[in-house]
Amino acid sequence: MLLVASTAFITAQDSDTTDTTKQDELSLITETPEEGFQVAVQLARKGVTTTQPDKDVLFMLRDVYSKDPDALIASSHVVAVHYQTVAAANNYWRE
Amino acid sequence: MLLVASTAFITAQDSDTTDTTKQDELSLITETPEEGFQVAVQLARKGVTTTQPDKDVLFMLRDVYSKDPDALIASSHVVAVHYQTVAAANNYWRE
Amino acid sequence: MLLVASTAFITAQDSDTTDTTKQDELSLITETPEEGFQVAVQLARKGVTTTQPDKDVLFMLRDVYSKDPDALIASSHVVAVHYQTVAAANNYWRE
Amino acid sequence: MLLVASTAFITAQDSDTTDTTKQDELSLITETPEEGFQVAVQLARKGVTTTQPDKDVLFMLRDVYSKDPDALIASSHVVAVHYQTVAAANNYWRE
Amino acid sequence: MLLVASTAFITAQDSDTTDTTKQDELSLITETPEEGFQVAVQLARKGVTTTQPDKDVLFMLRDVYSKDPDALIASSHVVAVHYQTVAAANNYWRE
Amino acid sequence: MLLVASTAFITAQDSDTTDTTKQDELSLITETPEEGFQVAVQLARKGVTTTQPDKDVLFMLRDVYSKDPDALIASSHVVAVHYQTVAAANNYWRE
Repeated sequence: MLLVASTAFITAQDSDTTDTTKQDELSLITETPEEGFQVAVQLARKGVTTTQPDKDVLFMLRDVYSKDPDALIASSHVVAVHYQTVAAANNYWRE
Repeated sequence: MLLVASTAFITAQDSDTTDTTKQDELSLITETPEEGFQVAVQLARKGVTTTQPDKDVLFMLRDVYSKDPDALIASSHVVAVHYQTVAAANNYWRE
Repeated sequence: MLLVASTAFITAQDSDTTDTTKQDELSLITETPEEGFQVAVQLARKGVTTTQPDKDVLFMLRDVYSKDPDALIASSHVVAVHYQTVAAANNYWRE
Repeated sequence: MLLVASTAFITAQDSDTTDTTKQDELSLITETPEEGFQVAVQLARKGVTTTQPDKDVLFMLRDVYSKDPDALIASSHVVAVHYQTVAAANNYWRE
Repeated sequence: MLLVASTAFITAQDSDTTDTTKQDELSLITETPEEGFQVAVQLARKGVTTTQPDKDVLFMLRDVYSKDPDALIASSHVVAVHYQTVAAANNYWRE
Repeated sequence: MLLVASTAFITAQDSDTTDTTKQDELSLITETPEEGFQVAVQLARKGVTTTQPDKDVLFMLRDVYSKDPDALIASSHVVAVHYQTVAAANNYWRE
């Protein structure tokens, strides 16, 4: 369900938030374009959870979020911006 | 119909999602600017399906999506951002 | 009329869509900044028609589209993103 | 009045549209950052008039446009994207 | 008050508008990242006042603007785009 | 609560605003990608508080802001743009 999915989108970083050691391990360098895409998704989520770290509110917002297909495109847009960063960091995995 | 089209937009990656081998084959390097554009479209779709992988919800959202021409422009915008990445990766297919 | 204009915006690529040979000829390299701008416009349109290739739906959407001046600015935004790509590809037509 | 201003925004390029010679003279290279900003504004307007060249419709849309402050910010955003392009073209007018 | 603040945002450039000499002094080069940020804010404002130079209309729009928190985020977005330009111009103030 | 969270988002920079010395210490150079992300968040907040420095109005806006999940994604977008800048400044923390 979208409720579940968007919850995952918003709360996936929560464990990281309490594990500062893991956060310091954030790296833009990946072996493949596919892994780089996952980092871009992770960064987009991190931008959301940093702005709104309160889990209870995030759950309350799910109903609104789940009815807005524009939010899906907007999320894809944020991922695209981060993917530019990650791809440049990896010299576009050219060789 | 737009319903069909937007469904295609949202679900085209579903087969990839279950085929992790194929996902690892994602590459930004293409032979032509035209092929590069298709990769940009693929990446934009991947951003949507990663955020919302649930097919049933995606189908429910189609009615809303089909009535919003802004969503078409917004989707074109996401493709444009990814095309910047792909074009840079290919040195703009200059030679 | 805007209806006509937006139709042109949305359907201009249709002939290209059925002419795959011409699509393969897409190039980011142009002789002048003006020609480069036309390529950027072409890419923005291509992003729309790729997402929604169904002509009948596109025509149905015209009424909505024609009443939204924000859509004009949003379209100009997409063109701007593509123009960054095209200008970089041409080394900004410096010499 | 905003009606006048937005009209200017939308129709300023009309004379250019009928003067193809002048359009070919479009250049990203300027002497100063200030002149470069004017080129960025010109490019943002060009993106609008290319999408919607019909003057009568543009006039009809003025009332809507004049009541939307978001449109002013959105326009400023498009100018910002083009200014990135123009500034890069001029090596940021560093020396 | 927000009315005052947004007025400042929109009209801060007005004195510049009548002082063309000062406008020609626009420069992207600054000594510190902080000064560079102020230039980015200045550029974002300049994009607004160039599109809508009429002070009376700008004042009329304040009520609408003051109730839209999205406008604050959108303004921050425009500043971010310009800051990319200014930071690149200054080689990111690396040394 | 989101009210608290968004307040934090909007007012976190207020102490900086009255401490100009600290503002001059803004730097894009960080040791890790994680620290760079925090700078990007800081810059996004700075863009908001610069546009609207009035704390009372910011508090009034919280209720609206707290009900708009799109604002969370939009904020994440602004962070993404700034992160591009910070990551480039640090050569993507490659070595």
